[in-house]
Amino acid sequence: MAVVFERIAILGAGLIGGSIALAAREFGAVSGVTLFDTDPDVRQRARELGLGEVCDSATDAVREADLVILATPVGAMASAFADAAPALKQAAIVTDVGSVKRAVIDAVQPLMPPHAFLIPGHPVAGTERSGPDAGFATLFHNRWHILTPLTDDRPDYAAAATRLEQFWRALGANVERMDAERHDVVLAVTSHLPHLIAFNIVAMAEDLESVTESEVVKYSASGFRDFTRIAASDPTMWRDVFLNNKDAVLEVLGRFSEDLAALQRAIRWSDGDALYALFERARRMRREVIEAGQDTPAPNFGRDEPS
Amino acid sequence: MAVVFERIAILGAGLIGGSIALAAREFGAVSGVTLFDTDPDVRQRARELGLGEVCDSATDAVREADLVILATPVGAMASAFADAAPALKQAAIVTDVGSVKRAVIDAVQPLMPPHAFLIPGHPVAGTERSGPDAGFATLFHNRWHILTPLTDDRPDYAAAATRLEQFWRALGANVERMDAERHDVVLAVTSHLPHLIAFNIVAMAEDLESVTESEVVKYSASGFRDFTRIAASDPTMWRDVFLNNKDAVLEVLGRFSEDLAALQRAIRWSDGDALYALFERARRMRREVIEAGQDTPAPNFGRDEPS
Repeated sequence: MAVVFERIAILGAGLIGGSIALAAREFGAVSGVTLFDTDPDVRQRARELGLGEVCDSATDAVREADLVILATPVGAMASAFADAAPALKQAAIVTDVGSVKRAVIDAVQPLMPPHAFLIPGHPVAGTERSGPDAGFATLFHNRWHILTPLTDDRPDYAAAATRLEQFWRALGANVERMDAERHDVVLAVTSHLPHLIAFNIVAMAEDLESVTESEVVKYSASGFRDFTRIAASDPTMWRDVFLNNKDAVLEVLGRFSEDLAALQRAIRWSDGDALYALFERARRMRREVIEAGQDTPAPNFGRDEPS
Repeated sequence: MAVVFERIAILGAGLIGGSIALAAREFGAVSGVTLFDTDPDVRQRARELGLGEVCDSATDAVREADLVILATPVGAMASAFADAAPALKQAAIVTDVGSVKRAVIDAVQPLMPPHAFLIPGHPVAGTERSGPDAGFATLFHNRWHILTPLTDDRPDYAAAATRLEQFWRALGANVERMDAERHDVVLAVTSHLPHLIAFNIVAMAEDLESVTESEVVKYSASGFRDFTRIAASDPTMWRDVFLNNKDAVLEVLGRFSEDLAALQRAIRWSDGDALYALFERARRMRREVIEAGQDTPAPNFGRDEPS
């Protein structure tokens, strides 16, 4: 694999930043990686894990970089980048990994120096773990990476976007382009709402008086446990997602609640046909997810296979 | 392993019935298994799979049985059992595998002949698959089996319940006793509500105009896919669960909707502290589920492990 970028800088050394650092070098996409994280403990751990050259300021990290990747929670990207922005080298590319795109563009674009290119992006990959120890090099393998390039008519912008695309492909991702607004609506459905609902049911179960927490845990294999996985995701990251994709999330949440009220009514009035019809439809979607290679076909996600 | 019952009869040869047939013989808990299913195609398939001696009527199936297991959807148990009940042998035990207990007791108890024992139960085990081909012998390994014995002061009732407990332990399950009402409330939280929510979000996503179904499928690895698994469960079984555990389900569903409305308000008013506090609490529950051995600790349920 030919090197795509000589040097990259990663601001934020958590699950995603750490995985990029490992993947970029393991798959030969870069010659060198610098990292910075505002948390000294995370910097220390990143050094111990050998994720790359860990710098003591964002400015030092980005100075020689051909590509700068903002890998903090969405709400911290502008402050993580502000000091370092003036130090960007000529024709540097700046991208990010935020789960929300419009809000990131609005926050980061005003900080961009005129000699660099902002090409936002979102790797649709992750686990419920967080922090530098959670990273692994194959995290992006066969996952989608969505780029949301800006309307930027500088002649070199298109070439920069193509190069960034090559970088993500080198890490094993499939790259797709979309505009930022569409991204935010699609991800509100496929990611933000599912997380919100999972957080809500898990917190609710903890609060019940009628059923104890230990009973919920004990019998969780009957369905509940599937929700606890994504409800274990990083709270700061998710707080920022909901604060920064408010309109799209409220829109699909309204839709979800409306449909849930209809289902509630069908139960109250014992409308078995309505329940059956809805459950039958939901079943079909699972087959499509599996056929699209987005999940394992093994029952119970393969957790309970005959040993 | 000593044989616990000489002969058992299973009415309903789906995922659970088929798994019991396989497990009971593989782990030496029984000498013989008879099965009946009202669907001739299922009977045919059960014969091909060698699940046991497949009979052409429920009455034939139960005639020699020391234990009769009702393994149909909850709403079909009474009709599956009615014809066969008078043919039960002396001191036969009747149990079931329904996800709801009070409604099953109310439907089945009036059919019981005075010379037999009804001891309802629920294996907290399963997969999203259904039908005789979905069964496997280790389905009950390390899963909970909940017995909800009746208030029955015949001297042999307690001994019959102990024997049924031995049977489930022989199949690898951990056995717990509970009263039927408590069971229905606990399972409404851990199983029925999670399934309802999963069915609802999957059907909702299919109906959206703003995002296509193929986009939802394509980016489902960002959270949505976790919900599609349980939404793929058998629609008849689940229709019957909601029709037969209405009060408990409506109660926790009301609670869920109330909490979701509060979360919606926190998003609308950008109350980041409230969001963070709730997400942080939800995280803790995941650790407890894993520590209780109810789920795999591997990230992403082990689906995306480095290969």
